[in-house]
Amino acid sequence: VSELEQRLAALVASVAPTSEEAREAAWGELDRKTKPRGSLGRLEELAAAMAAATGTATPEPLRAAIVVAAADHGVAAEGVSAYPQEVTAQMLANFATGGAAVCVLARAVGAELVVVDAGVATAVDVPGVRTVAIVRGSANATRGPALGREDAVRAVLAGAELAHELVRGGTNVLVLGEMGIANTTVAAALAAALLQRDPQDLCGPGTGVGPGGVAHKAEVVSRMLAVNGPDPADPVGCLAAVGGCEIAFLAGVALGGAAGRALVVLDGLISSTAGLLAARLAPNALGYAVASHLSPEPGHAIVLDDLGLRPLLELGMRLGEGSGGALAVPILAAARDILVEMATFSDAGVTDTGR
Amino acid sequence: VSELEQRLAALVASVAPTSEEAREAAWGELDRKTKPRGSLGRLEELAAAMAAATGTATPEPLRAAIVVAAADHGVAAEGVSAYPQEVTAQMLANFATGGAAVCVLARAVGAELVVVDAGVATAVDVPGVRTVAIVRGSANATRGPALGREDAVRAVLAGAELAHELVRGGTNVLVLGEMGIANTTVAAALAAALLQRDPQDLCGPGTGVGPGGVAHKAEVVSRMLAVNGPDPADPVGCLAAVGGCEIAFLAGVALGGAAGRALVVLDGLISSTAGLLAARLAPNALGYAVASHLSPEPGHAIVLDDLGLRPLLELGMRLGEGSGGALAVPILAAARDILVEMATFSDAGVTDTGR
Repeated sequence: VSELEQRLAALVASVAPTSEEAREAAWGELDRKTKPRGSLGRLEELAAAMAAATGTATPEPLRAAIVVAAADHGVAAEGVSAYPQEVTAQMLANFATGGAAVCVLARAVGAELVVVDAGVATAVDVPGVRTVAIVRGSANATRGPALGREDAVRAVLAGAELAHELVRGGTNVLVLGEMGIANTTVAAALAAALLQRDPQDLCGPGTGVGPGGVAHKAEVVSRMLAVNGPDPADPVGCLAAVGGCEIAFLAGVALGGAAGRALVVLDGLISSTAGLLAARLAPNALGYAVASHLSPEPGHAIVLDDLGLRPLLELGMRLGEGSGGALAVPILAAARDILVEMATFSDAGVTDTGR
Repeated sequence: VSELEQRLAALVASVAPTSEEAREAAWGELDRKTKPRGSLGRLEELAAAMAAATGTATPEPLRAAIVVAAADHGVAAEGVSAYPQEVTAQMLANFATGGAAVCVLARAVGAELVVVDAGVATAVDVPGVRTVAIVRGSANATRGPALGREDAVRAVLAGAELAHELVRGGTNVLVLGEMGIANTTVAAALAAALLQRDPQDLCGPGTGVGPGGVAHKAEVVSRMLAVNGPDPADPVGCLAAVGGCEIAFLAGVALGGAAGRALVVLDGLISSTAGLLAARLAPNALGYAVASHLSPEPGHAIVLDDLGLRPLLELGMRLGEGSGGALAVPILAAARDILVEMATFSDAGVTDTGR
């Protein structure tokens, strides 16, 4: 086992289970609040989940960071996207200068935005981008592995390092966002490999290819899998086989966030597939995950179902970038405030019938 | 026609249709933003709806107020609630002192909270409550009309007056919240009268009566309707027949808000029934309405279906108070910011494939 894989094993081992004691304490507290028991529905479940993650029934006020990681993919050469590859770098610059949807949404919900070049084909020289590119774009996985195994591990570790840094700075919610032309194809391939599902079930229109394009994507994914033969029992091997760098990086953010007892908010198919990879590496990480929304991309529901996560929102959003994840931030903040700030029946002198 | 009914007719006439020109201008603007067309789903629809309501494709930043109106209902004497009537006044005090769920949520989402005594049985002497009670609790509608017709109109006009005041102060989003022991029964009766539906379809557990309690509620609603014989073509008559004061007041807030070109956010069954009443009085008001969430109370889906409104959230919330409406505020704020603050393809130098 290489030194890199040892570091990954140590990261995985550092993800502790959530605290069921804190979750129960939170439910006890919620049941004393001035409202019928359970009447705030999933808001109460979220509050309890936050207690379980942070290990206390009085979690600190929310401090959310949205990590948007961008990368390119050699498989874009197979014509699987409605957009040319140059758009990844253009959008990375747009993230850094504040004009993209996720920038607007991060400001709207009061989240920090961290923009990461995790492996864009051409380096982008714009202030505000963190460059952690291990490789400048993955290889075309229809012809062999997308990434070397060590590079795949390096990208995961780099994500965990960023998460550790954010958690040390007080972040307690990490939203996983991404950008990368052709990355719905890559995510579909990785999910198909990990879940042993038919590529046709996992491929959809992405940013806007037509029905013929979807069939073509499924055929490309089938070739990615046939050429590389990934083993679902070896998640790092699956990642190296099909890519991609932003998914690897975000899986690392998820692992590092969970290790730091932060909630990890999944966005769409790509971000959720990073969450799936993290959960396959460290099953304890699943306890820290929140599904923000359901996108119309068909693979997304399959990945969330496998993880046993129910999305909070279903608004027909299919942009990625962490845009759906951003909208979960105020809901999580509200859940935390309900748990910590609401009056109890005895505080407020309200008659409690125990219902 | 009385002078009061003339004032109501003038209020109704002051609700203008939404601006379809501004809606189209907003869609044009959204299609130039750096994202595939329509990829932000319902967030884009909300942005366009906000443009249509406010009459401009560049609406001002959101300023939301949650109006929580409380009242008592004589029909509580029929044993339709899990809670005693005294809880209405206790909760009104809890709203004013900041401990209730809606207080916490209003702070979390940055909305102003306006607490209104719209007709609680016993006056509550707590600072921070606006008292506009026309009557001190409605009469038991199983024995005759809940409200005099003029009092019903007075309560609607009082709500509109508050909305006018808030809109003059810069509020552009009004959330309708409520509290009142037995008010799911009253709302079910009013919805049954306006929609000509079987009371059994509209009655549910409310804050927590069991299955026997639900059947009893439906039977009580049937008596309320049989005794008063409300005519669905006369919405004010239906309101006077079954009550209640907070629903009347909130219908007035909806009418006044729509007249002031503010968005009006509906919460659960009771608040949405106030929206239904407003829409029956002034069909133009419907264009300003947003359904924030779907509660498990069975009548809620029926009322929203009739209005043709799709809820944004489905989180199993059944508290009322405007709690679900509060959670829609950050989503609306995000929609507005997407419309006004995002970069266009040409601003950002991003390749536009027209998808």
